Amino acid sequence: MKEAENIAGGSPPPDGPTPTVTKVAVIGASGYVGEELVHLLLRHPCAELVAVTSRQFAGKTLAETFPRFSHLEKTSELRFSEADPAQLTQRAEIIFLALPHGRAAEFANPLLQSGARIIDLSADFRIREPKIYKEFYGHDHPVPELLGKAVYGLPEIYRRQISDAKLAACPGCYPTSILLPLMPLIREKVVNLASIIVTSLSGVTGAGRKVEADYLFAECNESMRPYGVPKHRHLSEIEEQLSGFAGEKIAIQFTPHLVPLNRGIVTTIHVDPAEKIDGGSIDSIYKKAYGDEPFVRLLGDELFPDTKNVTGTNFIDMAWRLDPRTGRLILMSAIDNLMKGASGQAIQCFNVMRGYRETEGLS
Amino acid sequence: MKEAENIAGGSPPPDGPTPTVTKVAVIGASGYVGEELVHLLLRHPCAELVAVTSRQFAGKTLAETFPRFSHLEKTSELRFSEADPAQLTQRAEIIFLALPHGRAAEFANPLLQSGARIIDLSADFRIREPKIYKEFYGHDHPVPELLGKAVYGLPEIYRRQISDAKLAACPGCYPTSILLPLMPLIREKVVNLASIIVTSLSGVTGAGRKVEADYLFAECNESMRPYGVPKHRHLSEIEEQLSGFAGEKIAIQFTPHLVPLNRGIVTTIHVDPAEKIDGGSIDSIYKKAYGDEPFVRLLGDELFPDTKNVTGTNFIDMAWRLDPRTGRLILMSAIDNLMKGASGQAIQCFNVMRGYRETEGLS
Amino acid sequence: MKEAENIAGGSPPPDGPTPTVTKVAVIGASGYVGEELVHLLLRHPCAELVAVTSRQFAGKTLAETFPRFSHLEKTSELRFSEADPAQLTQRAEIIFLALPHGRAAEFANPLLQSGARIIDLSADFRIREPKIYKEFYGHDHPVPELLGKAVYGLPEIYRRQISDAKLAACPGCYPTSILLPLMPLIREKVVNLASIIVTSLSGVTGAGRKVEADYLFAECNESMRPYGVPKHRHLSEIEEQLSGFAGEKIAIQFTPHLVPLNRGIVTTIHVDPAEKIDGGSIDSIYKKAYGDEPFVRLLGDELFPDTKNVTGTNFIDMAWRLDPRTGRLILMSAIDNLMKGASGQAIQCFNVMRGYRETEGLS
Amino acid sequence: MKEAENIAGGSPPPDGPTPTVTKVAVIGASGYVGEELVHLLLRHPCAELVAVTSRQFAGKTLAETFPRFSHLEKTSELRFSEADPAQLTQRAEIIFLALPHGRAAEFANPLLQSGARIIDLSADFRIREPKIYKEFYGHDHPVPELLGKAVYGLPEIYRRQISDAKLAACPGCYPTSILLPLMPLIREKVVNLASIIVTSLSGVTGAGRKVEADYLFAECNESMRPYGVPKHRHLSEIEEQLSGFAGEKIAIQFTPHLVPLNRGIVTTIHVDPAEKIDGGSIDSIYKKAYGDEPFVRLLGDELFPDTKNVTGTNFIDMAWRLDPRTGRLILMSAIDNLMKGASGQAIQCFNVMRGYRETEGLS
Repeated sequence: MKEAENIAGGSPPPDGPTPTVTKVAVIGASGYVGEELVHLLLRHPCAELVAVTSRQFAGKTLAETFPRFSHLEKTSELRFSEADPAQLTQRAEIIFLALPHGRAAEFANPLLQSGARIIDLSADFRIREPKIYKEFYGHDHPVPELLGKAVYGLPEIYRRQISDAKLAACPGCYPTSILLPLMPLIREKVVNLASIIVTSLSGVTGAGRKVEADYLFAECNESMRPYGVPKHRHLSEIEEQLSGFAGEKIAIQFTPHLVPLNRGIVTTIHVDPAEKIDGGSIDSIYKKAYGDEPFVRLLGDELFPDTKNVTGTNFIDMAWRLDPRTGRLILMSAIDNLMKGASGQAIQCFNVMRGYRETEGLS
Repeated sequence: MKEAENIAGGSPPPDGPTPTVTKVAVIGASGYVGEELVHLLLRHPCAELVAVTSRQFAGKTLAETFPRFSHLEKTSELRFSEADPAQLTQRAEIIFLALPHGRAAEFANPLLQSGARIIDLSADFRIREPKIYKEFYGHDHPVPELLGKAVYGLPEIYRRQISDAKLAACPGCYPTSILLPLMPLIREKVVNLASIIVTSLSGVTGAGRKVEADYLFAECNESMRPYGVPKHRHLSEIEEQLSGFAGEKIAIQFTPHLVPLNRGIVTTIHVDPAEKIDGGSIDSIYKKAYGDEPFVRLLGDELFPDTKNVTGTNFIDMAWRLDPRTGRLILMSAIDNLMKGASGQAIQCFNVMRGYRETEGLS
Repeated sequence: MKEAENIAGGSPPPDGPTPTVTKVAVIGASGYVGEELVHLLLRHPCAELVAVTSRQFAGKTLAETFPRFSHLEKTSELRFSEADPAQLTQRAEIIFLALPHGRAAEFANPLLQSGARIIDLSADFRIREPKIYKEFYGHDHPVPELLGKAVYGLPEIYRRQISDAKLAACPGCYPTSILLPLMPLIREKVVNLASIIVTSLSGVTGAGRKVEADYLFAECNESMRPYGVPKHRHLSEIEEQLSGFAGEKIAIQFTPHLVPLNRGIVTTIHVDPAEKIDGGSIDSIYKKAYGDEPFVRLLGDELFPDTKNVTGTNFIDMAWRLDPRTGRLILMSAIDNLMKGASGQAIQCFNVMRGYRETEGLS
Repeated sequence: MKEAENIAGGSPPPDGPTPTVTKVAVIGASGYVGEELVHLLLRHPCAELVAVTSRQFAGKTLAETFPRFSHLEKTSELRFSEADPAQLTQRAEIIFLALPHGRAAEFANPLLQSGARIIDLSADFRIREPKIYKEFYGHDHPVPELLGKAVYGLPEIYRRQISDAKLAACPGCYPTSILLPLMPLIREKVVNLASIIVTSLSGVTGAGRKVEADYLFAECNESMRPYGVPKHRHLSEIEEQLSGFAGEKIAIQFTPHLVPLNRGIVTTIHVDPAEKIDGGSIDSIYKKAYGDEPFVRLLGDELFPDTKNVTGTNFIDMAWRLDPRTGRLILMSAIDNLMKGASGQAIQCFNVMRGYRETEGLS
């Protein structure tokens, strides 16, 4: 199991002199993920944002579009343009794609051929198997030859591969909140693989800036509901990752819910331990896997994760409980879906790819 | 299986001439549940509210305390008093207890001995086994001899017993949202009893009007978190009910979450079917159990329950999905925790006990 | 001053035998106002809803469209159709128009000519002066000849006229919250007419079910902002009403704000008294004007209005303060924008037009 | 007019080498303001937090108390202690007081006598006139001799005085949002001083971490209401500041509202211009006053302030409109009440007092 070896295999690099600045561009910066990404890049000490594109906002400055950070330098000059891959790769070394699912694939080949490295925040390159992509997305992948080249952008697991990647495919928000608690336990073979049942709760930005009636304030406020049951698209990447990690095919249960907050995901995972296990072992497994990770906070078996503690940060907070009555193990995590679940994680990948301190621009 | 026979066994009575008015009192009407109950009773065509008690509000009128319904007749005259069981039973035939858990038990004996009938909204009489009570509540039950006399106030299941009950113990909000979807399936033996995993989401009124830092606006808004894992107190009544219904001892998994809405519970239940089952059978089981129930809306396998559709009503909305990938069955429900989860259900019990139309005062 | 005479001039009729049922139809029932109106009509003991129209939902049943009240009789049979005035007037005596502003005018003439009476919830017939309409709406009124025939549907002020009206134009939500506190004071000439400064706060349903980015959950939650300053369209009807009432032209200041709740308007009005006035006089003026009104709750100078006390009701809660430091008088009101601010008020007009008890279907 | 001269008189210092680190302590760090302040100080490159005190949390570490920033260095070692002025001044050069109003005054004298400089976030030293303090706070000021020595900590106005201050009294959240838009106009004598009418909307953290029923989630959510009318305590400092600035006694109208968000204040001010004024002049006045200010964003007469653009930042966003219909001028501002309205402003004062870059630790 190549992946299993990599868990925390590449540790975050020690502090050192700040390397030179990297020129970057963002394609498709009009959604919540794109906005957050632009905000992070503008304040990143080692990134220089040279271009942003958006069909919707073409011609407008960043300051006009995003009044929240209109005070930042460059936001008054930098204007959204239409995306022109050839031109972008002349100006930027690393290109972030913050496009809707399905549209990132169009840009990948021309950008890679021009020598740029890509950090993709869409779902287009998260799957390795074209068949799985087709099963969940309903059509053939447009550039299946690239699927094998993409690295899944979860630094806590794939740090070494990300550092060399030409194309990093950042995990979805639900997958991040599910994979990080599960992977170390699967690697240590302490989980009954057929028993994994996941319930997640997501704030409304998880749906993106979609102008649809379902996401109007008065439809979401004082409302909560399950949706996407039983076959949400994110299952494809979650199961492929877990299966690769376990060395066998896993099918899990996944039930997401929409709840009325702006930001945040809480995930609760119920599993049967593979055999009798005690709390000390679980603690050890997590400490070994994540004890040195800068963005994982281990809450152990006394505290509970709460989205309000991670909102605006790149942390994942993780806790667990062993239920002596049922024998089950309950894993709980909380992230900010726009940070560790999207743009923060993309910056973390960027730092890994460029050899920067992993927390650079994220604290 | 006595309970199993009773499922929908007693059907809601047909419409007929409205019977005479019943005099009622509410002890402990200061919390959210008590407020909602008073509101319902004041508008109930067959109830006359003759007394309300509250230590905290003693001396104040209902109109002063609850400006929301200060226009209703009687709210300017009716004043909170200290609870005096002897006096109350002289004036009221049915006494509602909306006290904090632990305090209802003090009042039950004197009230019953004076000939009053009781509808208790606390947890004090929901359990039949004193041992289970002690295990979950940490002390001996103060009047264990009453436990066997109480009827669990879930009309869809125990309608016949409730109609004759001296003491109806209304189910908790979580239990209502969990038991109603599960019971028909357990009765028909289509569920693997060891496989029941329940996740619930609750709005903040579920915690009552507790003046604690945890429930301040700024602590709950933009926050969500699991809590009470793995042994929430409500497990005691849920498991006792399910076990009685199944004819064997059941232990379930229950993970509640606090989410930022005022009202509502959404429950998601994952179970393994006992054997291969198809959707048509599940539909039939639910239609047989609840097809004539006035407060159950069956959403089937295409719609999803959403708290906003039940807020302010006494409905439980229920849906289900069979997952062909995992073989699991997912049950989903939504209720208003203060209505079907508490005060609405208490009114429903009241209607059953007095032979009124079951929807009286609830539509 | 014709209007001034009418203030509470027509008192709510005494209780009597419930009159026969009126057949009604709703044109344009797809917005929040339309949904609430349909909900109220379905439960109104003296209304029979025979038709609902909506381009967007044509062909769907009410139950499919509005799951919140899908249990109500008739919602499974009644289907949205396209609006056909000729057909509707054959079936319904009173037609409610819950259309976007500008579209109601198209329907008014054919409906009136067929003998139907109209209750319009749009802004199309609230103004009497075509010039004012043009100034605020930017184009000529399409049927100016009808403007003079419409009655402004504020029953507390125009009850007698509404009872005979062929066309009642229900006030907007902001105007209702502003006019009711001001009108009695203006009638009694205790207000300096040049000094009226109004600030209002509105929940998001005030914007209707507009599918625009501005009203997405994540744009409104944790956001508040003034908008529409200094010349909001509602100024036209507010000023025309106040001017008519005062007998001279009044210009007021009006600053609305969007705040993150579903329902509710709070209005705060600062005025200079015309001459020295004491609190007793203000109390007397309000009691004389509204003491017998079923939907006005006078909070006096000790309590404050709070939207949570009026949500889901047809009440307006009103309070006031005299500031001894500045000499100013502060008026404060709260309503549910979808009830007293729209659909509840429309039902109140309906009851007045048909001679029903004014609270019928509203309690 | 001493104050008038100072408006933007001291400009923010140019960038230069970062000076040495200052040791600081926080007394009373348990409220929302204290928590935010500690968070800012822990990340401030020129501050070293050496002590925090709190009766309520004495003995607990910062990490245990504030899980949101438990990852920051020192939070696992730094423990809350009881406040001991003598000991604190041995260890810290600057002491922040984040105590409830009334308790800061006890600490000021001993701390000042030991040579520490104080930044007080309570209301205790914001007033210069003991008589005004008594009028609004209901009792004599405990150390009136200190009132004259305190500097009002609004850097945009009193930068020079703050730089030398021994005791900086940070303005309240409402006053900050009101004074900054008004002061330049008053200085330029373009405002009719008798005409100032202020309406403010505040998120719930504005009430502090008070464990009172009024601030429970279910009391605030879906609620909005005016309160504190007509004589809110903050009027004392607002009027004293404005009067000092105008050279004559001013009384203003101030109507605050509580609305359901965590953070943010929106203020709307209606004034009569002293004489006819055009938009260009207003723009000039604001640009002259605040054009170089790092934390003032001037939105002019086309945009509107929105709390969501300032949440988590130290900005005040300000806009204005001239109403040609009424002749009035409307000023609108938005701040984060815990940042520019409290802790962020305190850090800004700290930077000024120590000669640091004014944005240090705030971007």
